[in-house]
Amino acid sequence: MRITLDFADVSRFINAMSGTAAYAEWIAVDWGTSNLRAWAMRDGEPMMEASRLDKGMGALTPDQFEPALLEMVEPWLGGAKMTIVACGMVGARQGWAEAPYAAVPCPPVGAGTVKAPVTDPRLDVIILSGLSQISPPDVMRGEETQIAGYLAGDPDFDGILCLPGTHTKWVQISAGEVVSFRTYMTGELFALISKQSVLRHSMDEGWEEDAFLAAVRDGMADPQALAGRFFGIRAGGLVGEAIPGAAKARLSGLLIGAELAAAKPYWLGQRIVLLGDGRLAGLYSRALSAEGAAPETADVTHATLTGLTAAYEKLKEAT
Amino acid sequence: MRITLDFADVSRFINAMSGTAAYAEWIAVDWGTSNLRAWAMRDGEPMMEASRLDKGMGALTPDQFEPALLEMVEPWLGGAKMTIVACGMVGARQGWAEAPYAAVPCPPVGAGTVKAPVTDPRLDVIILSGLSQISPPDVMRGEETQIAGYLAGDPDFDGILCLPGTHTKWVQISAGEVVSFRTYMTGELFALISKQSVLRHSMDEGWEEDAFLAAVRDGMADPQALAGRFFGIRAGGLVGEAIPGAAKARLSGLLIGAELAAAKPYWLGQRIVLLGDGRLAGLYSRALSAEGAAPETADVTHATLTGLTAAYEKLKEAT
Repeated sequence: MRITLDFADVSRFINAMSGTAAYAEWIAVDWGTSNLRAWAMRDGEPMMEASRLDKGMGALTPDQFEPALLEMVEPWLGGAKMTIVACGMVGARQGWAEAPYAAVPCPPVGAGTVKAPVTDPRLDVIILSGLSQISPPDVMRGEETQIAGYLAGDPDFDGILCLPGTHTKWVQISAGEVVSFRTYMTGELFALISKQSVLRHSMDEGWEEDAFLAAVRDGMADPQALAGRFFGIRAGGLVGEAIPGAAKARLSGLLIGAELAAAKPYWLGQRIVLLGDGRLAGLYSRALSAEGAAPETADVTHATLTGLTAAYEKLKEAT
Repeated sequence: MRITLDFADVSRFINAMSGTAAYAEWIAVDWGTSNLRAWAMRDGEPMMEASRLDKGMGALTPDQFEPALLEMVEPWLGGAKMTIVACGMVGARQGWAEAPYAAVPCPPVGAGTVKAPVTDPRLDVIILSGLSQISPPDVMRGEETQIAGYLAGDPDFDGILCLPGTHTKWVQISAGEVVSFRTYMTGELFALISKQSVLRHSMDEGWEEDAFLAAVRDGMADPQALAGRFFGIRAGGLVGEAIPGAAKARLSGLLIGAELAAAKPYWLGQRIVLLGDGRLAGLYSRALSAEGAAPETADVTHATLTGLTAAYEKLKEAT
């Protein structure tokens, strides 16, 4: 997403900075474990974006949330109270304020919110609830808003949304509701194994696509063999010739292949939409395509903003 | 293993310390990635043991191996050259000196050695070769010596040796040879996931044996579901009530269960001997027993020393 400012808007920003008129109508916030992003919203559109990679929920203690947010959004505030709508891990037990989970099956958002405790009178921070599932136990925070955002543009969608990430989610949608979902720690496992296990010695910067696709097949066919195949990546480089880019692609393919085998009841014969950032969504897309599926892709930032906007509109109606 | 010294031996040690007569006849060394152990050997028996948890091969640069060894074994040296026989990762490419691999099928030791470069004239350090397998690619360093040590006491053994550890090995033995083997990174995955992934928030000190055995069954039945079940451990603690000790036991059981599913061609219907330290070997023993196997266990330190002694005797014959 690229935000372009015209001259009138720049003037408005300068006026806001020097007076009491707010630059933003409201502020949208996506606050995950490792990342904080905020958008100044006006007329349903993002006018400016700010982000910090070092102010994720995982890096903050409870008293650090308000200063972290204020530092970022202060230029967009006026003298009056500003509505700030936030989704993500900021609402976890270890976050700023715990937002209750809504239990599936239910619509992706609208079940609940919590107000964050603030000291600055200009801030009115509303954190959206995540979703939970009792059996098998599962939770999400943030993805429910992206799902709502996607559904706003495709309200009759009936199928599977896959949200690739550190914790990839497979979500079954029907009649505007989240019916069930399942989380796979594939991304986190890839990061741990590639950076911190004995396999780190075998990783390089390359990417061997054939090795990736072969590994997806191996991971799907014999998922129980993963812990052995991981070591085989290391051993292969010791007893034979290492192909640049093959080790990383193979590790990624084995993990995604095993996930596709497990998530097969979700995607087989279904309409699938991948909602994620470019590179990782691309891997899932190629892996699924190799298995005969025909995944579509959608922009996840657009879905996040649409979801936060829908929540804001609903909160405004209610007051 | 407990080493008891009698009065004559203590006198001998004191004499050695004050003169030029060596205390040890030769020195046995097990030098792994994270640990260094040495034994002063005489008349085929360990007289003293020394170990350092901070001088494993993984913590040392090439020039640090000799000082680390010397610091530990100097009290056992005399004025003459001392034979020191070492096995383990000390012979890896990143170790003190690279010992070539012997390719299976072959006897577990005897295929090759390398002399470590030393500056102290009293040291004669011989590093034993590891084993490699071309297809599927696999390697071991140190376990071959333990296997040789076990076989010295049971030369007609025909079956499977399982060596649980950071990288667990399943080894097929027939007619005194290693026929094939397979390494699973199960122990390293457990350490990474329990200490560094999002699951670290769910770990406590307890151990729920029923949760372990149920997870072994789940891991064997649906190994592809691992990355989802891992997240389920975390989510289960968030949406329900966490049972103390269940999270760690479940993670361990899922990983070992998936390994048992993969290694089934090794152990099903075979004689199995577990060669490992108490706690981890106990987990494998209970998991295998729950699957109807009847694993035996054997002492791994005894096997290491017996294997190093056999290598020493063979080197002595050759000179």
